[in-house]
Amino acid sequence: MVEQEKIAYDAPTEVKDIHVVNTYELEDRAREIVPKGGFDYISGGSADEYTLRQNQKAWETKRILPRVLADVEFPDPSTSILGHDIKVPFIMAPIAAHGLAHQTKEAGTAKGVADFGTIMSISAYSGAKFEEIEEGLQGSPRWFQIYMSKDDELNKNIIDEAKADGATAIILTADSTLSGNREKDIRNEFVYPFGMPIVSRYLTGSGANMSLNNIYSQSKQKISPRDVRVLKEYSELPIIVKGIQTPDDAMAAIGAGAEGVWVSNHGGRQLDGAPGSFETLEGISKAVAGRVPVIFDSGIRRGEHIFKALASGADIVALGRPVLYGLALGGWKGVRSVLEYFETDLERVMQLAGTQTIEDIKNAQLFD
Amino acid sequence: MVEQEKIAYDAPTEVKDIHVVNTYELEDRAREIVPKGGFDYISGGSADEYTLRQNQKAWETKRILPRVLADVEFPDPSTSILGHDIKVPFIMAPIAAHGLAHQTKEAGTAKGVADFGTIMSISAYSGAKFEEIEEGLQGSPRWFQIYMSKDDELNKNIIDEAKADGATAIILTADSTLSGNREKDIRNEFVYPFGMPIVSRYLTGSGANMSLNNIYSQSKQKISPRDVRVLKEYSELPIIVKGIQTPDDAMAAIGAGAEGVWVSNHGGRQLDGAPGSFETLEGISKAVAGRVPVIFDSGIRRGEHIFKALASGADIVALGRPVLYGLALGGWKGVRSVLEYFETDLERVMQLAGTQTIEDIKNAQLFD
Amino acid sequence: MVEQEKIAYDAPTEVKDIHVVNTYELEDRAREIVPKGGFDYISGGSADEYTLRQNQKAWETKRILPRVLADVEFPDPSTSILGHDIKVPFIMAPIAAHGLAHQTKEAGTAKGVADFGTIMSISAYSGAKFEEIEEGLQGSPRWFQIYMSKDDELNKNIIDEAKADGATAIILTADSTLSGNREKDIRNEFVYPFGMPIVSRYLTGSGANMSLNNIYSQSKQKISPRDVRVLKEYSELPIIVKGIQTPDDAMAAIGAGAEGVWVSNHGGRQLDGAPGSFETLEGISKAVAGRVPVIFDSGIRRGEHIFKALASGADIVALGRPVLYGLALGGWKGVRSVLEYFETDLERVMQLAGTQTIEDIKNAQLFD
Amino acid sequence: MVEQEKIAYDAPTEVKDIHVVNTYELEDRAREIVPKGGFDYISGGSADEYTLRQNQKAWETKRILPRVLADVEFPDPSTSILGHDIKVPFIMAPIAAHGLAHQTKEAGTAKGVADFGTIMSISAYSGAKFEEIEEGLQGSPRWFQIYMSKDDELNKNIIDEAKADGATAIILTADSTLSGNREKDIRNEFVYPFGMPIVSRYLTGSGANMSLNNIYSQSKQKISPRDVRVLKEYSELPIIVKGIQTPDDAMAAIGAGAEGVWVSNHGGRQLDGAPGSFETLEGISKAVAGRVPVIFDSGIRRGEHIFKALASGADIVALGRPVLYGLALGGWKGVRSVLEYFETDLERVMQLAGTQTIEDIKNAQLFD
Repeated sequence: MVEQEKIAYDAPTEVKDIHVVNTYELEDRAREIVPKGGFDYISGGSADEYTLRQNQKAWETKRILPRVLADVEFPDPSTSILGHDIKVPFIMAPIAAHGLAHQTKEAGTAKGVADFGTIMSISAYSGAKFEEIEEGLQGSPRWFQIYMSKDDELNKNIIDEAKADGATAIILTADSTLSGNREKDIRNEFVYPFGMPIVSRYLTGSGANMSLNNIYSQSKQKISPRDVRVLKEYSELPIIVKGIQTPDDAMAAIGAGAEGVWVSNHGGRQLDGAPGSFETLEGISKAVAGRVPVIFDSGIRRGEHIFKALASGADIVALGRPVLYGLALGGWKGVRSVLEYFETDLERVMQLAGTQTIEDIKNAQLFD
Repeated sequence: MVEQEKIAYDAPTEVKDIHVVNTYELEDRAREIVPKGGFDYISGGSADEYTLRQNQKAWETKRILPRVLADVEFPDPSTSILGHDIKVPFIMAPIAAHGLAHQTKEAGTAKGVADFGTIMSISAYSGAKFEEIEEGLQGSPRWFQIYMSKDDELNKNIIDEAKADGATAIILTADSTLSGNREKDIRNEFVYPFGMPIVSRYLTGSGANMSLNNIYSQSKQKISPRDVRVLKEYSELPIIVKGIQTPDDAMAAIGAGAEGVWVSNHGGRQLDGAPGSFETLEGISKAVAGRVPVIFDSGIRRGEHIFKALASGADIVALGRPVLYGLALGGWKGVRSVLEYFETDLERVMQLAGTQTIEDIKNAQLFD
Repeated sequence: MVEQEKIAYDAPTEVKDIHVVNTYELEDRAREIVPKGGFDYISGGSADEYTLRQNQKAWETKRILPRVLADVEFPDPSTSILGHDIKVPFIMAPIAAHGLAHQTKEAGTAKGVADFGTIMSISAYSGAKFEEIEEGLQGSPRWFQIYMSKDDELNKNIIDEAKADGATAIILTADSTLSGNREKDIRNEFVYPFGMPIVSRYLTGSGANMSLNNIYSQSKQKISPRDVRVLKEYSELPIIVKGIQTPDDAMAAIGAGAEGVWVSNHGGRQLDGAPGSFETLEGISKAVAGRVPVIFDSGIRRGEHIFKALASGADIVALGRPVLYGLALGGWKGVRSVLEYFETDLERVMQLAGTQTIEDIKNAQLFD
Repeated sequence: MVEQEKIAYDAPTEVKDIHVVNTYELEDRAREIVPKGGFDYISGGSADEYTLRQNQKAWETKRILPRVLADVEFPDPSTSILGHDIKVPFIMAPIAAHGLAHQTKEAGTAKGVADFGTIMSISAYSGAKFEEIEEGLQGSPRWFQIYMSKDDELNKNIIDEAKADGATAIILTADSTLSGNREKDIRNEFVYPFGMPIVSRYLTGSGANMSLNNIYSQSKQKISPRDVRVLKEYSELPIIVKGIQTPDDAMAAIGAGAEGVWVSNHGGRQLDGAPGSFETLEGISKAVAGRVPVIFDSGIRRGEHIFKALASGADIVALGRPVLYGLALGGWKGVRSVLEYFETDLERVMQLAGTQTIEDIKNAQLFD
């Protein structure tokens, strides 16, 4: 592993509760304090950003029908996923390089997630080491997301470490065998200002001073159902395949032993011209038909969105950028503020939609 | 009941006829004279204001087909609803806190409504007492809209008072068991500058200096068909359930004895992400199939809108914000000006569409 | 007839050929030289101007499929309508008060139309007398458009005069039994600056200093198939019913003896919230099924539009505002320039679409 | 052939590699250095530019579904067309007058295309002679695109020269029997600043100082399947009919012996109001059903677009304006840079979409 170079990048450092009116506003506030290269990296999508925008527009294709005589009070958003009972149907999505948003890196996010009380996903492209993140998590549940090496032995090493760290599931991200065409990063000549200790073992450098595309290129391209089987056998953990956008891939993943299907278009950061993530959810959920849980991300910004995703077949959703904006604005406390906002917002939506439980949401009819 | 505190809020006071070119313009004019907190409260919707906007956009989904050889002259917009003969197919919707728009509060609106000659709806969150409103109504017909207390005895008290006041129907608003996510109010830290004498009996305060969400929280959440039955039995008045957005809820209300179904999304102020109110009307009307009258609100700004709502199954419509802007701009005379505008506009639409009577409108075919 | 008052209104006076790049631009150029009240009257629509805009947007709902191996050269746009052979499939629409655009009034338009070589429609609300218009027409073919009086005898007088003037058909405008809700005119407090000599016999004044709504109110409201029969019997001329927007009205008109169906929403000036005129054309044409010619107006601004209207069942189209802008900009020569523009543009479209004749256009398939 | 006049037109001259972030940006950069008349000619469309815009919007009607477990690495974009093996599924489209973009004219484009390694299409309206273009091509493959003369003998001369030059196919452009209504050219009073040596034999002048419409008018209008047969017999080369927008014309071309169908709306430069080119592709491809190759152009700006076109039935696509912007910005090296951009972009799209070969793309399902 190459010595990590010191690159000038002044990530925010403040730790405080933040007032969340809505999460769109958080993006605007984060833009003011996160260095431009980092902010564009976090907020941007690929190419025309069609898919990025479509992730938002897609919500308007199905509308919530409030049930107003439903005898609801104090709705209960708790649920469970792969053996974890959680108080809300949302978890933290795996995201690379939290250090772009805050100097506490993934440890800050982890602490906020743990304090709030849901599942943390640790990215293989984390800028913090497992032990640093554990300082935030303090034993709280976590899943590990892997970008595979071309070298199977190194993958085993990584899995060994993730298991030792206590991961209860492995998320295999399958949609990113190269970087999407992120034009903002190209214009900014963006490189990571710090290394990626978990995967640096298979890179030509630490990750610092390298572009995302460079790093992706050094990861494994030839992802197939075989990888699902291999990871499952070696890890003896549930494998969740992330980046699924078609019923056929969902069934292929399940056929190879996956115990979770993660519907996502990577936040509009990979192949532009793909549908909005929500547009593909219902078809995939119907194909999966309850065989394994369906996790959903890409575009969740409000409680209404969580409701629509669950009503379209998702079992839980994952939150990404809004949490990172919370991290930027308030460190771990900002993370917690954002998660609390989603909890409060979802409870209000459940009350106003007339749904007492997550099961009620799943049975709700949306309006085209 | 707590002593009502004096909070600085300079509501308009002028009383005069106003010239109405259209009601959108009234909103712009009201913005200039109503204090910002009050104006945003009145005009705003919840969250992204998607549903608020959709209430307007939805009108474009069905278009009026003018019949031009229909032998029409002096079209007659009169109709009747629950035993009242009224000269127009529109009534005043229940709205909280008219005092935000004008110092005469609900009494001003009531006087304008009575002078024009249609039905007044009195909100449980009125800032004026029944006897004050009666000064405006002078015996003119009125319906009472209830936000229920968690305490059934207090509900009986309220019903007793409403009956004593002469209400001929009870409107049970079912879509507001909590406040919608009204971001403008949050940003403005909006609290009512005056109390709500009708419901203060079940609040921790008078209503003054309290937020809408605080007040809603102290009202009853668990609304169900049982409440329809209880209110009907106790009041011996027709119960109209307001906030219906699905055929199933309409049928549940009717099954519980409701004698009116009020299709509404609360002017886009409650659950954002719900369809435009007009989008749900036809399906509900078809399910109701004439068993009880259908009342419609949310988005009526022109005579064309009244026409489209009636042609889609509504029996009458209710007007909200435009009337309050009239109140702000001209007190009771302004209210009357707005109602006269709608009457004139509807008559013109009836003539140009080739419909002599309200029945003709109901039989008109719209164009998708 | 009241003496015509002199009201200050400086209509343009220039007579010259004009260069027409497109007709949208003509509107912009006319705005600069026509007094605001007159310009708004000519260019405006009613209420939200939804229907006015929709008349343009509707063109995008069906697209032309160019046929490129069609062996076409020197396409021939000539056609015939009600016994008139004309070199193009377009005529002049009836429009009131051309004097708002140019001091030569309808005589100017008539001269341009006659010089170009198509049919002039003379409006009952013309600001010029028949004999003045004849100075422009010089025997060229004309149709007369009637707004009926409530008094049948006066209608007979008007028909007598129109026949004496040489009208070969009567256009009964049925969509305007009141004025549309023209908000620009209301804001401008627009009144005609000159009288309407043809209908002043049934008005309380000359027409000068009167609003359109005042004049429409004094005309007949109760238009029905009976009027078609009466006009036909008395005039012994073909009756064309203008303002048809439904198959049912088309069939009613034909059933009453109409020899032409004129599909129009009056340029978006009458009932706002009606569909774009082109949207209703195909359904009406299919119902008419060739029994009588179908004339189309409302929104024709390019040769492409003429093509689409003919391919959707129109036999000829009528041009309105663009011709009046030509009149404003160049008097009768400007009118001729505009008509020549349409001829040239249509011929190019015919060549590029692979259609040698008007019949070929009628047989063309559009692409949804 | 008339002596070519010298007209002031300062085309760019620089030769250099260019950095391509995206091709939209190239248009902006080219605008700054290409004289306005030339830039508007190259970039503009006809009339309202509806079809020009629709060529872009149409891409959003079908979306790419990434397959993420597809075992793909180093995707291979090579293919073959009419006997040529090419490393990418795109070629250079025929475009008139490259000299507007760069002083090296078609020779510059040809050199970039040859150096990159795909097929050059030489336009009959080239500003360079065959021998000048050959200096760039250096034996690399080329097709010749013909605008026919009204005089068959001259067409034979032209074909003779093209064959002598080494053309391996003849592209018959059938959609341009007159110029589209290019309003920008009209406003700019645009005339070519140099002649067209290949077709000047049938013009009244060299082409210099003549408008496009003038030149088109002197070319042949009556294009029909007979021309396909005649060209094929005389040239003994494959004939590709360009400008096909309907299944019927595709089948007519094939029936007459065409060995390629080129779906195109001429970049939105001919009949405005036609559908976006991509909208017509699938229907035509289905009708052709593999009988002959389908070439596609009009609107390709990204690798995603190439993918969508191939997945909708195209065998190869042709690039136009973006290459000319590359020529303007960097001469032959700029041309090469643009082609390399498309190659890289397509390879990334193939990887992220999970398609190893062009055949895989053709079998991909798009998402409506």
